[in-house]
Amino acid sequence: MNRAEITEWLKDLQDRICSGLESLDGTARFTEQLWTREEGGGGRSRVIRDGDLLEKGGVMFSAVHGAAPAFLRNDASINPAASGEPAEFYATGVSIVLHPQNPFVPIIHMNIRYFEMGNKRWLGGGIDVTPHYVSVADAAEFHRSLRNMCDRHHTDYYNRFRIWADDYFFIPHRNETRGIGGIFFDRLTGNESMDFASNLEFWKDTGELFLRAYAPLTEQNRKKRFTEAHRQWQLQRRGRYVEFNLVYDKGTRFGLESNGRIESILVSLPPLAAWEYYFKPAEGSEEWKTQQLLRKGVDWENVR
Amino acid sequence: MNRAEITEWLKDLQDRICSGLESLDGTARFTEQLWTREEGGGGRSRVIRDGDLLEKGGVMFSAVHGAAPAFLRNDASINPAASGEPAEFYATGVSIVLHPQNPFVPIIHMNIRYFEMGNKRWLGGGIDVTPHYVSVADAAEFHRSLRNMCDRHHTDYYNRFRIWADDYFFIPHRNETRGIGGIFFDRLTGNESMDFASNLEFWKDTGELFLRAYAPLTEQNRKKRFTEAHRQWQLQRRGRYVEFNLVYDKGTRFGLESNGRIESILVSLPPLAAWEYYFKPAEGSEEWKTQQLLRKGVDWENVR
Repeated sequence: MNRAEITEWLKDLQDRICSGLESLDGTARFTEQLWTREEGGGGRSRVIRDGDLLEKGGVMFSAVHGAAPAFLRNDASINPAASGEPAEFYATGVSIVLHPQNPFVPIIHMNIRYFEMGNKRWLGGGIDVTPHYVSVADAAEFHRSLRNMCDRHHTDYYNRFRIWADDYFFIPHRNETRGIGGIFFDRLTGNESMDFASNLEFWKDTGELFLRAYAPLTEQNRKKRFTEAHRQWQLQRRGRYVEFNLVYDKGTRFGLESNGRIESILVSLPPLAAWEYYFKPAEGSEEWKTQQLLRKGVDWENVR
Repeated sequence: MNRAEITEWLKDLQDRICSGLESLDGTARFTEQLWTREEGGGGRSRVIRDGDLLEKGGVMFSAVHGAAPAFLRNDASINPAASGEPAEFYATGVSIVLHPQNPFVPIIHMNIRYFEMGNKRWLGGGIDVTPHYVSVADAAEFHRSLRNMCDRHHTDYYNRFRIWADDYFFIPHRNETRGIGGIFFDRLTGNESMDFASNLEFWKDTGELFLRAYAPLTEQNRKKRFTEAHRQWQLQRRGRYVEFNLVYDKGTRFGLESNGRIESILVSLPPLAAWEYYFKPAEGSEEWKTQQLLRKGVDWENVR
């Protein structure tokens, strides 16, 4: 597939995911905004609000191009010449964050991106889940679906990319992971374990997996009754999500620093979030149990 | 005043401000937590919650010391030798952020800090206000009180430090100021326009001004009736406050990166905040008027 074909495939994926999510939600519909970027390219932002399942969600497509900013031109790992000379880049992707209504349904994030500069091109992406309340059974099912998908492409990928996700979605100042992880990968070219075409198939499958991996996490959980205390905890966990995205997330910070479309970048932030000073859940409570599980390296399919 | 006297003065200021705020609030009381820092020193954190005036507020005192971290040792502007050799630092201050219940009462922030390393010492601080709804009359009164205080010490200070506040409390990715500014200053030693003792008097007056500058902003505004729409706008303005503090505020980022006491650092975050995708207030509305005024260089005492 060339650049144009990949771009069309991503737009089609966005269409299919949006209509899948509308069916899943049952009541709300996405609204769309088209935008263009002065320096080249643009995007198709779709946001859903106040649904039966989803309190706020964004499914964003963009394809931007133009003169590569200095930090890209000068990065030897991207630009072998690293000459600082003018170069063109092309970047396209789909990015999703969903904040559900029910605290027992997790937040989910998916992103797949394709990047070209000069005669190089590579792929990045991942899916990860941030439960407000960790269900070990759900986490095992989610990771199993990721592992099965990865294993169809390369036997190393699940473990490599699961570890990468744990390291990436980590909040050092809280000493906790953002959630139960998932997979995260970047700069897949074709120079490593598989050729580009095979990596592209894996990358596409990551996008295809999204709805199948998310739906089971919503089915039972969205019907669970919850109290005001559960809701308060959800708002606090969303506060942590804000902390990660604004302080550590590379995509967000790159967007803020490179004058990206601010509304699309920050659509990942929750509709409502809370910060309580020195909130310590009672030992043994469900909130406490969740905190204990927010650490790197948990083998979710074998937690006792 | 020496280090110990300054430290005692700050603790006394914290006491007086907390009791002043309890009187002003009328119903809620501060709760206190003492903490110690493994590498030296500690603090006295005081937090108020769910009052009649204050939804959440922190009045934090700390005095920490020990081996200076590398970034301080290597900074030639602080350490003339910039040798990277071991050096001791001492830092003490009071820091305040108050989030009111009523959207017509502004958020206020005050910080004064004293720093010593080797044979150098300096002062920093400021007061600034973030209204959810800008009242030009309130802004003028607030800036007049700052100007009067500054003018008693040095005729240049108000203008210099007002501009510094506008530049510091700015959110580039939103292209708006955090609020109506105030004053901000750093690294006052005694090498510039006034000797250290005179700068110290100015610095102390900044602390002393806090209650006098804040009270008038609450008196009438706290009684104003507000709707759910006003509340929603307040929550969104708090979202901007979160964006500034997590993305740009040097004190917050330094605290996150230097393993500071996380609960004290993030006490500045609001109890509840909201993010709406692509929220554009109707032209001419109060929310729209506020947005128009969130820019640098407004001469608040002479707005037409």
